[in-house]
Amino acid sequence: MDDPPSAPRLRIRVIFGDAGMVGPGKAELLEGIARTGSIAAAGRDMGMSYKRAWQLVETMNDMFREPLVLRTRGGAKGGGAEVTPTGQTVLAEYRALQAAAGKAGSAYVDRLQSLLKTPAPQD
Amino acid sequence: MDDPPSAPRLRIRVIFGDAGMVGPGKAELLEGIARTGSIAAAGRDMGMSYKRAWQLVETMNDMFREPLVLRTRGGAKGGGAEVTPTGQTVLAEYRALQAAAGKAGSAYVDRLQSLLKTPAPQD
Repeated sequence: MDDPPSAPRLRIRVIFGDAGMVGPGKAELLEGIARTGSIAAAGRDMGMSYKRAWQLVETMNDMFREPLVLRTRGGAKGGGAEVTPTGQTVLAEYRALQAAAGKAGSAYVDRLQSLLKTPAPQD
Repeated sequence: MDDPPSAPRLRIRVIFGDAGMVGPGKAELLEGIARTGSIAAAGRDMGMSYKRAWQLVETMNDMFREPLVLRTRGGAKGGGAEVTPTGQTVLAEYRALQAAAGKAGSAYVDRLQSLLKTPAPQD
């Protein structure tokens, strides 16, 4: 909530035809699972139901040759979850794509912004 | 429908904070209006209700300092619509952004794709 409220940003979804897609929601969920060690907690941080978070994890695990998230059984709260090396790679490639696309697109974004009625502040 | 069914592509939304957003739907609608001269026809081509197409046009017209679409009154079917020079500029900048981001991101997309269970064909 401390981000500048109106700095422009790109929201990028990579669509692999029938093979599925990777976008901001899956990336944020992977990051949350890596941070919290829990699918439920990661989903909660995103205002997402446990069921929805689980569905996203299953979708991601089914898309790739290796699972991106593994459940770690046992423990006081019925076990947690961890992001696999493949999951870390997918997340890193997506974040690098975001950064590269944002850099390449910044001049176009600036020109679009200059046409707005209420131009957002530069960051 | 003749596109390769599974070639990866980027879907990019530019989010201008509280000032609104520009993405594939608005771009496609602008293109449709330019092509058909009609908001209704452009929306129909996208499987969109007339109401929804009009709402999108009003949102776009409110976002920018100049309207992107103008109604042209009169004519046999109650008048059409045209994309203004500002609308053409917005569309061109968005398409150029897409192209630049796609080019900058292609190596990352390729690496993500190589991790898929069913890699989509290269195009």
